[in-house]
Amino acid sequence: MKKFMDDKYLLSTKTARVLYREFAAGNPIFDFHCHLDAKDIYEDKTYRSVTELWLGGDHYKWRLMREAGVPEEKITGDASDLEKFRAFAKVCSRAIGNPIYAWTHLEMQRYFGIREPLTEENADRLFNLMNEKVPSLSARTLIRDSHVSAICTTDDPTSDLSYHVALAKDETFKTRVLPTFRPDAALKLTAPGFAAWLSKLAEKVGFPVDSYGDLKRALAARVDFFDEVGCVVSDHSLEPVPYADESVNLDEVFRKAKAQQPVFQAEADAYRFDLLVFLSAEYEKHGWAQQLHIGAQRNNSQINFEKLGPDTGFDTLGDDKIAAPLSALLSKEQKEGHLPKTVLYCLNPAQNEVLAGLMNCFAGDVPGKIQYGAAWWFNDTKEGISRQLDTLMQFGLLSEFIGMLTDSRSFLSYARHEYFRRILCDKIGALVENGEFPNDKQTLGAIVNAVCYQNACRYFRKA
Amino acid sequence: MKKFMDDKYLLSTKTARVLYREFAAGNPIFDFHCHLDAKDIYEDKTYRSVTELWLGGDHYKWRLMREAGVPEEKITGDASDLEKFRAFAKVCSRAIGNPIYAWTHLEMQRYFGIREPLTEENADRLFNLMNEKVPSLSARTLIRDSHVSAICTTDDPTSDLSYHVALAKDETFKTRVLPTFRPDAALKLTAPGFAAWLSKLAEKVGFPVDSYGDLKRALAARVDFFDEVGCVVSDHSLEPVPYADESVNLDEVFRKAKAQQPVFQAEADAYRFDLLVFLSAEYEKHGWAQQLHIGAQRNNSQINFEKLGPDTGFDTLGDDKIAAPLSALLSKEQKEGHLPKTVLYCLNPAQNEVLAGLMNCFAGDVPGKIQYGAAWWFNDTKEGISRQLDTLMQFGLLSEFIGMLTDSRSFLSYARHEYFRRILCDKIGALVENGEFPNDKQTLGAIVNAVCYQNACRYFRKA
Amino acid sequence: MKKFMDDKYLLSTKTARVLYREFAAGNPIFDFHCHLDAKDIYEDKTYRSVTELWLGGDHYKWRLMREAGVPEEKITGDASDLEKFRAFAKVCSRAIGNPIYAWTHLEMQRYFGIREPLTEENADRLFNLMNEKVPSLSARTLIRDSHVSAICTTDDPTSDLSYHVALAKDETFKTRVLPTFRPDAALKLTAPGFAAWLSKLAEKVGFPVDSYGDLKRALAARVDFFDEVGCVVSDHSLEPVPYADESVNLDEVFRKAKAQQPVFQAEADAYRFDLLVFLSAEYEKHGWAQQLHIGAQRNNSQINFEKLGPDTGFDTLGDDKIAAPLSALLSKEQKEGHLPKTVLYCLNPAQNEVLAGLMNCFAGDVPGKIQYGAAWWFNDTKEGISRQLDTLMQFGLLSEFIGMLTDSRSFLSYARHEYFRRILCDKIGALVENGEFPNDKQTLGAIVNAVCYQNACRYFRKA
Repeated sequence: MKKFMDDKYLLSTKTARVLYREFAAGNPIFDFHCHLDAKDIYEDKTYRSVTELWLGGDHYKWRLMREAGVPEEKITGDASDLEKFRAFAKVCSRAIGNPIYAWTHLEMQRYFGIREPLTEENADRLFNLMNEKVPSLSARTLIRDSHVSAICTTDDPTSDLSYHVALAKDETFKTRVLPTFRPDAALKLTAPGFAAWLSKLAEKVGFPVDSYGDLKRALAARVDFFDEVGCVVSDHSLEPVPYADESVNLDEVFRKAKAQQPVFQAEADAYRFDLLVFLSAEYEKHGWAQQLHIGAQRNNSQINFEKLGPDTGFDTLGDDKIAAPLSALLSKEQKEGHLPKTVLYCLNPAQNEVLAGLMNCFAGDVPGKIQYGAAWWFNDTKEGISRQLDTLMQFGLLSEFIGMLTDSRSFLSYARHEYFRRILCDKIGALVENGEFPNDKQTLGAIVNAVCYQNACRYFRKA
Repeated sequence: MKKFMDDKYLLSTKTARVLYREFAAGNPIFDFHCHLDAKDIYEDKTYRSVTELWLGGDHYKWRLMREAGVPEEKITGDASDLEKFRAFAKVCSRAIGNPIYAWTHLEMQRYFGIREPLTEENADRLFNLMNEKVPSLSARTLIRDSHVSAICTTDDPTSDLSYHVALAKDETFKTRVLPTFRPDAALKLTAPGFAAWLSKLAEKVGFPVDSYGDLKRALAARVDFFDEVGCVVSDHSLEPVPYADESVNLDEVFRKAKAQQPVFQAEADAYRFDLLVFLSAEYEKHGWAQQLHIGAQRNNSQINFEKLGPDTGFDTLGDDKIAAPLSALLSKEQKEGHLPKTVLYCLNPAQNEVLAGLMNCFAGDVPGKIQYGAAWWFNDTKEGISRQLDTLMQFGLLSEFIGMLTDSRSFLSYARHEYFRRILCDKIGALVENGEFPNDKQTLGAIVNAVCYQNACRYFRKA
Repeated sequence: MKKFMDDKYLLSTKTARVLYREFAAGNPIFDFHCHLDAKDIYEDKTYRSVTELWLGGDHYKWRLMREAGVPEEKITGDASDLEKFRAFAKVCSRAIGNPIYAWTHLEMQRYFGIREPLTEENADRLFNLMNEKVPSLSARTLIRDSHVSAICTTDDPTSDLSYHVALAKDETFKTRVLPTFRPDAALKLTAPGFAAWLSKLAEKVGFPVDSYGDLKRALAARVDFFDEVGCVVSDHSLEPVPYADESVNLDEVFRKAKAQQPVFQAEADAYRFDLLVFLSAEYEKHGWAQQLHIGAQRNNSQINFEKLGPDTGFDTLGDDKIAAPLSALLSKEQKEGHLPKTVLYCLNPAQNEVLAGLMNCFAGDVPGKIQYGAAWWFNDTKEGISRQLDTLMQFGLLSEFIGMLTDSRSFLSYARHEYFRRILCDKIGALVENGEFPNDKQTLGAIVNAVCYQNACRYFRKA
């Protein structure tokens, strides 16, 4: 029996332990996709309690508490920090096999120096112990102590990126904090806020956005601006991947959407397809990569969406067809001569092979150009990570993989890189010790270093 | 090398063996979904031979025999009991890795005291040996010896439930035998028997069922009646999950269906969606749970359907989209304020994550309110059960899981609970011995007891 | 730690090693599906270098090299053989977990006697070493040394099969080389070459092919001809599986397609469905099996398709619905009384269970009549093979499985049978040593022999 989450955690073989200790553990972190707020980093945010730090915005934990029947008051409501912490401790203590169990205890060990398991019984004591430590866990401290060399936040095209600019000028803070261009608002043409967002965009670019042509010019201008501030990557959530109908008059679709008149599904799809192709050219021109997040189905509980809003734990994965439309999109971008580096993230693991298979249909030019991205969201578990790595290795080259990201809203989530790196080393170790790959430390170490850090540095550098 | 199916069967670690022996094995069984006939229980049915007991209605075994090329005469035809047994023994003896191999030998060990493997060579001897034992294996004896505390049968709304009533009055029989409300006939509006079924329903409720409103009133009355007889759960097979079109005139759809006039797919879907929402309110009002079986594709071989009828081994799993329509259905029930406790069963394991992800989008109120149900039918295998448990643990809380059911037509199938419990303990043991969860016997035992029995008792109690 | 790819490669248990050594390894190969050219066999083709042999047409390797950023010049372009070999060696040496790593080193060991891993450093030396051996590795030598008893090539209905005829007459060559009837061209009625192909067909059969009826007569004639030359199996790639619309006028659809006029999707589907049903009757009449390859999505990169043509590494797997249309197709063939033996191959592993579940809905008549075929193309990996075997065992009888094929364009690919057999024995060994199946060497050996060779011999013999 192995000890509970000790140094050998998830490292089953000697080879795995050597690779983790001598290579993986020492690498810095390039966190190329997260939802941290540059303002929090600039202001070096601190938290009033472990409850705020852990439960303040973590909808993964909220879901689990709801499943256990915890009343909403103790989740997002007005209960005290201690009551909420107690409720979470009780649920977590029985969450065997859930990634929150792993993440929680990694964070307790690494950031709070607590190695005992969280239970209902020790909840009050640990609450106090952790709260003593909380003031010292500021945003910048956590980033520095986690050896994070770069952070890509996620930003609307209308953002002024003032905190990114300010951080770049702050010589006391070495981590690069880069914006990510996420123009979801431009693609959601049937959303209620579309017209208002266009006005905001017009204000930023200084010219009216009254036509589809204007919109393209405005977005291109914002891409230029983001680029000046250091942006190296864009991000899209495709829900679902749109099919193109090239007979649609897109100027007319834009006009109707802006006027909040009804738009047919086929029209919306054609608009989204065309705009994605247009934007890809802008990204490619600046040497950016594009990230495509595929398969989310959001806001499933209408009543809770109305009550709590988006991103509160009511999202899931969809099962729309993706192979044909995604292929058409990438083929079009490639045909027009401006397919950027592209990272494909899959939320429905039944579609893992579809994405991995498409990856190398569009390979070429630069190593690892099309990436089958790391296990995302609900898949960010031991099994999900393992499955993504297995699929990746079978369909392509692990050695070209840009590896892990946090996708997180919490500064504690850097522990997930450790989680990923342990699983990675365990997988490599198993293949070697099973006689399937030579026990050549130099090659193995090079692969581990590449996946943990070096590939991301190379990939997210402007070409 | 482990011995063949001994006490340590499927229990790889010491922790697994301790958990199984000290916790899992001693729990009674709450069989909350099966296809047993209350009449057979009331009359304490016995069998004339092991062939009738094993092969009389078991389409799992029929399929396997057909694959091996056994002529239909020796499967469902007129061959003698011995000939059929011989044919099965030959096929089974080579069915490595198939669940029927496991189930068959568990049943031989537990109910017949036979520990040697079934082979072509010993078939005649075992046939005689088992036949000697068969008369003592009556329905009630098997139920009692398997420590079954409650059984939920599956019943049409027009059933008079007379055997359930009689069993409740029989003080010599302690196991509760409860009906389950399964109104598939009301939802299959395009089936040839729809109008006849409506007449039968009208007769039971004592008023004509001539309109959609009548149907709703009649079904509500039958829910009340089932509730009086002890029903705690309903059951639906959604093939596929219907999309709603709210513009459809349902009174008109009902009128056409009753008159056996053609109904468009969109009309049938709208009808089914609306009726499901209506029924959910009735279930919720009585504190029942609803079971939704998703993903079956039945009667695939037209020629055999015409020859042998339904449920004879020609069913399979489908690949229809389910994420969006199922979300819409549950969201609507929740929005209208009457989402009942709900168990989602998945037949296509590629959709496991879709169901597990939806589960917690509708959590709340009571612990484990929405259940991602146990591995169903073709998934009721070591790998299928393991996969369901893995997915459940990653997406939610194993500790809130209501666990296993037999879904069976055979009184011998209680051995499948042992099969499930061994796999459950093995999985927990592996996590603990791998250092991923503390080796705290009290917590682990509590989880095992909860999943094996206690959660089901709590869940299927009227709120 | 196990040694790198030694005799125990992939054989984890003693039972696995015994089964492999005493049963699996000694079986000949019945390669019932490949893309070898009968002309190459007849002419006993040799190669000018290991580069031509390994990289000349292997789009698996091309994909991997593209992912690593190797310029096309060194893949399909004009670079020297040494440069291409060096580029491949560098990529391969880091391709941990990829099947090409395994295949490459199996081929090096078995055909070149080289046991050291290929690396960037030893690439030049191994290039020379292997080139010395290349002239002795002629087509016939490789076939003979691999103990191949039969080869089914893949052939267009218009092929004159002259090399098959010549090979059958050559008494010095014992391996049977049989054609496979692959009428994809007849089904692709909207392809640009349809009319030209019809002319070629007309020429072969000696009568005009001007109507749908003519086409059927012509295809039936070619089936007869293929049968005379020894054909035992047909092959179709269904992309996707067509839905039938029985109201379509197929004579009119054929007329339009022949005249290269537009054809609706529903018309093309109805035509394909009907033609598949027609052909199945011809196959069944001759005692052939039909192979259905399901789930490919080809030529994804339009720009590369225009540059390099088909089968150059730009194919992937699709995610179309298959359960309902495939069931309808097989049910129709069965209903009309001429469902042939059928092998269903799955490219999207998320659909494994759909195919395995359908298999036994159409079982009967002969053992293993409907086969859930071996892991195909992107799934021909340790994990993919393992997954196919797991699914097969759970849904049916491993003992009736016809086993492995190469699906290859290379005479070196017979090493993949060894790869498959090792995984097969490892899986059986694990079940036995885990106490799930009796350690009865005779039964286990019989199953291994059946899957490795005997079942295929029996299955591909005319009824």
